[in-house]
Amino acid sequence: MAKRTPSAPKTSGPARRLDELAESVVQAAEHGANPAFDIPVRSLANVSFNQKSQLIEMGERSQQRTFFNLNMAKRFMQTCLVAAECKKLLSQSKTTSIRDLFYMVKHTIPGTNEETFEDQRTESDPIIEDLEVSLDSLREELHLFASNRGALVGEITLVDSGDTINARRMGSGGWSIPSIVEPDVIQFKKCTARSILLIEKDAVWRRFNEDKFWRRHKCILVTGQGQPPRGVRRLCHRMVNELNLPLYVLVDNDPWGYYIYSVVKQGSINLAYESRRMAIPSARFVGLSSFDVDKFKIPSNVTIRLNKEDVTRAKQIMSYPWFQKKPWQREIRQMLKSGVKMELEALSSKDISFITRRYVPKKIKEGDMLD
Amino acid sequence: MAKRTPSAPKTSGPARRLDELAESVVQAAEHGANPAFDIPVRSLANVSFNQKSQLIEMGERSQQRTFFNLNMAKRFMQTCLVAAECKKLLSQSKTTSIRDLFYMVKHTIPGTNEETFEDQRTESDPIIEDLEVSLDSLREELHLFASNRGALVGEITLVDSGDTINARRMGSGGWSIPSIVEPDVIQFKKCTARSILLIEKDAVWRRFNEDKFWRRHKCILVTGQGQPPRGVRRLCHRMVNELNLPLYVLVDNDPWGYYIYSVVKQGSINLAYESRRMAIPSARFVGLSSFDVDKFKIPSNVTIRLNKEDVTRAKQIMSYPWFQKKPWQREIRQMLKSGVKMELEALSSKDISFITRRYVPKKIKEGDMLD
Repeated sequence: MAKRTPSAPKTSGPARRLDELAESVVQAAEHGANPAFDIPVRSLANVSFNQKSQLIEMGERSQQRTFFNLNMAKRFMQTCLVAAECKKLLSQSKTTSIRDLFYMVKHTIPGTNEETFEDQRTESDPIIEDLEVSLDSLREELHLFASNRGALVGEITLVDSGDTINARRMGSGGWSIPSIVEPDVIQFKKCTARSILLIEKDAVWRRFNEDKFWRRHKCILVTGQGQPPRGVRRLCHRMVNELNLPLYVLVDNDPWGYYIYSVVKQGSINLAYESRRMAIPSARFVGLSSFDVDKFKIPSNVTIRLNKEDVTRAKQIMSYPWFQKKPWQREIRQMLKSGVKMELEALSSKDISFITRRYVPKKIKEGDMLD
Repeated sequence: MAKRTPSAPKTSGPARRLDELAESVVQAAEHGANPAFDIPVRSLANVSFNQKSQLIEMGERSQQRTFFNLNMAKRFMQTCLVAAECKKLLSQSKTTSIRDLFYMVKHTIPGTNEETFEDQRTESDPIIEDLEVSLDSLREELHLFASNRGALVGEITLVDSGDTINARRMGSGGWSIPSIVEPDVIQFKKCTARSILLIEKDAVWRRFNEDKFWRRHKCILVTGQGQPPRGVRRLCHRMVNELNLPLYVLVDNDPWGYYIYSVVKQGSINLAYESRRMAIPSARFVGLSSFDVDKFKIPSNVTIRLNKEDVTRAKQIMSYPWFQKKPWQREIRQMLKSGVKMELEALSSKDISFITRRYVPKKIKEGDMLD
């Protein structure tokens, strides 16, 4: 992988912090003390919405994890194993999946029938999250990734692991967005885009690409194929901040679409610790809005009746602190009042290219968006 | 979209067959006859495994769909609507998703409360399949696609919608494989690969890419991110046949992995009509095999006990005609005997790059593969 500066010390950032963690354990052991880490608490009780930064953030509460404690000794050992493996990945310049990591740290403790790890979801995954918060490093900075999903085309050239990717010449498929998009892997070169359009649905993204929307409107088209994975969110975050671009989000008109938008904008409750490097408070919701049915005369036979779950979820979302702005309250009330939701594809009932030729351009031009 | 030959008539292939279909309906109407199509039967009763071609194929049985029949009139109308929309897509050189198509053909019949279509899965999707078989055209040739998943890197240059994609310079993300990979969209240019490696899991594909396996072993690396979607299968089919390359398949060691392999190789029961243009009888199963636990001394604590469902599925697969070869019977018996399955990631317990440096090279070199 390309390094940003060839002279950068090998143990910068996360690697250095991993060293310090190890160092503190060794020193405690040498002094006959009880080795311990401070692990910030990740429960809902320690999460809040920061009105000023407009981010869902973690509070200050933390918990000690000590070695000489029957309830904690195993997790202490597991934390050390995961940390050691991350250190090894960093020094080898290799990356791996969180599934892979589980297998790498799983073994039988010699002379016993005891396994270091039994289960990924309840054991190694939470420890990765512990390390992310404790070390103030994203898992991607520890060279770990979850899933790889999402594609990009448009007015930008970037470098991925030393290869130059001209996103203007990526055909119908696009460049597949990797899970790890940190600056040591991805660098931005010539950007001629004036905005980023993040589209929930892959099939709709293809329509925008086929119609060369990105060329006409000088933008970067990104899809996360549903709830955008971390790589997509982090890449958008970097582009917005480093290239100073506005980001527009286009999702289905249902509570799930609203929620996807809010995660992109404010972050999520259970991953609040990553908001600062993932969330994009300047993001704008371009649609679909419940008011579009009237505005764009969308035929009623392509709308879908809200089910019970939709109604519950809409009401829940309406109560979140980050949805308290008046236009959002109005938006969600309108969905509940109309009793229907709508998919992006519903716009195709007017014309296959209605969404690229008329809907989005009009929305952006008139600033008809939600904050 | 780039055309193969600029002089190719606009109504070649699927477009011409759509015209003929429409023509026959119009002629019947003009002669006061009952308009009708012949739709091949897609049920299990009309599917068989062809020992000679080694493909799961459809039989000859077909059914008439007539207009003047109370049970068929609606489906007749729906078939015409979908066919007309496909014709429009072809003449506009546009492609769309099957979801989008549903919305495009859905409307209220003027003067009634009757909808042309109520539901995608039970109405418009089956009609797309009807048209695929009747017209002997893949849905992609009718400019329709389902999902877009999968990535590619390696020793090939290809052209996608006029853009040249050098898969040797696609970074860590790779080229995102589109759903439609027919020759009018994708053309192959300089291929320096000697084989194709199709990897079930995206995370494992990333390991192979990061270790630049494709450069060392002169190959093309493809992932389908689970059961490969149609675009991935069709692209592999084209590369195998047009570039004359062997295809190796690397999947988890579980009944699902065996099944993924068999779909790539022989096709599937419910999409038997597409076998001829999707299935790759020359494909080879490179692993994971149940015998690998001993061969590669894989620690027993990374294997997973088979559950009831696994056992049922393994026995079911064992009875399929296309799994009757002795080595396959031996393979599945070994899984049932050992009582365990294994993920590709389990090999990482030995070393993070064990799978790229030792496992796959040894398997291929020694021809230790299943047919």
